[in-house]
Amino acid sequence: MNDRSQRQEQWEDRTDALLAVASLAFLAGYAVRILGHDLPQVWQDVCLAITFAAWAVFVVDYVVRMWLSGLRPLRFVRSHVLDTIVVLLPLLRPLRMVTSYDKIQRRRDKARLTLYVRVMAYAGLSSLLLGFASALTVYSYEYGAPGATIRTFGDSVWWACSTLSTVGYGDVSPVTPGGRVTAVGLMACGLALLGAVTGSFSSWLIQTFTREDEKRPPGDFPGAS
Amino acid sequence: MNDRSQRQEQWEDRTDALLAVASLAFLAGYAVRILGHDLPQVWQDVCLAITFAAWAVFVVDYVVRMWLSGLRPLRFVRSHVLDTIVVLLPLLRPLRMVTSYDKIQRRRDKARLTLYVRVMAYAGLSSLLLGFASALTVYSYEYGAPGATIRTFGDSVWWACSTLSTVGYGDVSPVTPGGRVTAVGLMACGLALLGAVTGSFSSWLIQTFTREDEKRPPGDFPGAS
Amino acid sequence: MNDRSQRQEQWEDRTDALLAVASLAFLAGYAVRILGHDLPQVWQDVCLAITFAAWAVFVVDYVVRMWLSGLRPLRFVRSHVLDTIVVLLPLLRPLRMVTSYDKIQRRRDKARLTLYVRVMAYAGLSSLLLGFASALTVYSYEYGAPGATIRTFGDSVWWACSTLSTVGYGDVSPVTPGGRVTAVGLMACGLALLGAVTGSFSSWLIQTFTREDEKRPPGDFPGAS
Amino acid sequence: MNDRSQRQEQWEDRTDALLAVASLAFLAGYAVRILGHDLPQVWQDVCLAITFAAWAVFVVDYVVRMWLSGLRPLRFVRSHVLDTIVVLLPLLRPLRMVTSYDKIQRRRDKARLTLYVRVMAYAGLSSLLLGFASALTVYSYEYGAPGATIRTFGDSVWWACSTLSTVGYGDVSPVTPGGRVTAVGLMACGLALLGAVTGSFSSWLIQTFTREDEKRPPGDFPGAS
Repeated sequence: MNDRSQRQEQWEDRTDALLAVASLAFLAGYAVRILGHDLPQVWQDVCLAITFAAWAVFVVDYVVRMWLSGLRPLRFVRSHVLDTIVVLLPLLRPLRMVTSYDKIQRRRDKARLTLYVRVMAYAGLSSLLLGFASALTVYSYEYGAPGATIRTFGDSVWWACSTLSTVGYGDVSPVTPGGRVTAVGLMACGLALLGAVTGSFSSWLIQTFTREDEKRPPGDFPGAS
Repeated sequence: MNDRSQRQEQWEDRTDALLAVASLAFLAGYAVRILGHDLPQVWQDVCLAITFAAWAVFVVDYVVRMWLSGLRPLRFVRSHVLDTIVVLLPLLRPLRMVTSYDKIQRRRDKARLTLYVRVMAYAGLSSLLLGFASALTVYSYEYGAPGATIRTFGDSVWWACSTLSTVGYGDVSPVTPGGRVTAVGLMACGLALLGAVTGSFSSWLIQTFTREDEKRPPGDFPGAS
Repeated sequence: MNDRSQRQEQWEDRTDALLAVASLAFLAGYAVRILGHDLPQVWQDVCLAITFAAWAVFVVDYVVRMWLSGLRPLRFVRSHVLDTIVVLLPLLRPLRMVTSYDKIQRRRDKARLTLYVRVMAYAGLSSLLLGFASALTVYSYEYGAPGATIRTFGDSVWWACSTLSTVGYGDVSPVTPGGRVTAVGLMACGLALLGAVTGSFSSWLIQTFTREDEKRPPGDFPGAS
Repeated sequence: MNDRSQRQEQWEDRTDALLAVASLAFLAGYAVRILGHDLPQVWQDVCLAITFAAWAVFVVDYVVRMWLSGLRPLRFVRSHVLDTIVVLLPLLRPLRMVTSYDKIQRRRDKARLTLYVRVMAYAGLSSLLLGFASALTVYSYEYGAPGATIRTFGDSVWWACSTLSTVGYGDVSPVTPGGRVTAVGLMACGLALLGAVTGSFSSWLIQTFTREDEKRPPGDFPGAS
């Protein structure tokens, strides 16, 4: 490991806690501003400021790491896909938890998560976060619209769950153009991600059953003892 | 097979029938208490008592087996995933039927179930039991709620089927917070399980067709006879 | 090929056309009886008689073939899964068309259908036939029911399509117990079959793309000519 | 590369731009005629003429290329599946963009798209184009129908998105026979294609995670530096 990557590691270790806080601040600021639509204007402005400040922290971190890596911008973007997505959508930052958990397990010389479990963790967490953010966004468009069926945040979460699972009861559904565009985004991203979760779960189940078969030798008959 | 695992086998053989009865008692107690909401209070209390007694049987069995295995609790939990799930959700106990059927087939020196069939059996049975339990739970929340569309237990079963298949007509759907939380749970577990069933069925079909190809040699032309 | 299997072949060749006619008669009799619910009683009885006569033909053919094969009944059932399903549900008889097409291709020394295409053909045709039969059955339960949303046979076909694709708009959905039980049957069978179709299509697409890659050598650059 | 294929290349290079324009003209003509149903009759006729003229261009190009290839018609159809589909449904012509992008990448000696990404690109683009065309067609059937829930083109696009994702809220759904037939077509084609997209995305995700594992050697522990 050379000098350059050592400095990168130091930077990442130092900023890790700060970025986790910034990510929470981003989500909290966004949620409070939408759910507290009855709060005085000043509080709403504070929330907006917190949201943008948190975003700025991510952008600065991204630029510093691009500079530290010594790579050309385009190559850095291509080799740090997850980081780039996080800069554009800071609410996906908690995805880093999976990477961190994995690193800690490796430092302790413990087995890391298997392939399918990691795909499930990343894709499942992503769809959870996207679902939560979509519920917030759709609620912000719908709660005052005439003829809306999504009237409370609970309705909006219920709608997000029934959309992500592709059940789609239709008892509540967005009626405003903004809400519908958000819904289409959730369908597109969420369904691909949940498809990956379901597929990985299926593969993981078959893998587990296969391993169990190999562990039990043919002589392991309970009646043969 | 050493002394310790022999004692484990003896314990399992002796408790097998008792646990099957306890599992049925658990489900029956739960179902009667919900469906018989017009019964006098004393009967409802009896049902509740039966449900908890059945649960207690499972917990005792789990602890005894953990003690017999001589493993540390955490390792036991990790190596007996199915048993742990059964202790938490005793209604999944009938899953053991698949294991028992498999064991009996092996004792008779017969071919055991193939991999895909076993995955289908476990996942299909789990989703069936979860669907039934969810229909009961949702019905208990909804039957008296104002504006509810789920008014009979038949409606609730119909809702559970249309949810598990992700069709989601929306002619009946839960309106109470409790019913909706149960529904989200059913979506999350049920869909992953049914995805495994569908995937395994697909793989099994392709496997069957491939085998059929190998069985019929190229000389097996009906016109060549 | 021995004497026994030769006699089996002869029987199959002779009964092939008769069974195809019987299968059409079964479906036509069933459809006319349901769709023509305004016909005089005598015609309805004729249709019912045709349906049962066609069914009887299948049962006789099955018994004769079991006797010709010289196998014990249980073994015959296990090794002729498709035939057994056809005896129970004669409307699935057209599935034999895929087998026949395959045989004809082989007699002409032509390439037979590839694995994925055959799975798609069998599963797709099954779900089509099941969908049609379900639409008929649901229509027979619903067309006179109070509060029904399925009022014409067109509505019923539309409902079957939206159910098989798991879209489930819910603008039309069965309300009678009989209709709902049929619907649950269609969901269970149809979705597993359509999952197999979708999965095979996906695998076939990837196979086709992979072959195309292998066909075009790296020197096949249009600009290199 | 012989003389014949050289002439084919020349023809394709010369007609490429023309066909791209014809494809856009086809889609634009179709869209304007449907969306501008309040335009004077003469403009509608112009749009219809443009649509048919664009189609004619595709048919002429197809015939010329069949003649240049020197293959018998049936063999040409079998070996140019994508081209044949484009002649029947010119709105799928933009699919050629993926092929063109691939060719350009190869000329520049750059890595071409990987298998899964190509499947995703073709299937995703197809379902997008089919969804757009279906939204147009359904809108043309529904906008004046009594009792229709699809009243604006926005409603129709929203309906197409909720159908393609199999969510199917049912707040808007076609009521006319023509609209419903189009919808069934969209379900059949679109769902198979989107299943391929989801499956490929899942496979691509697992492939990416597997590669990442291989890249990071076991010595690449951050704490080991």
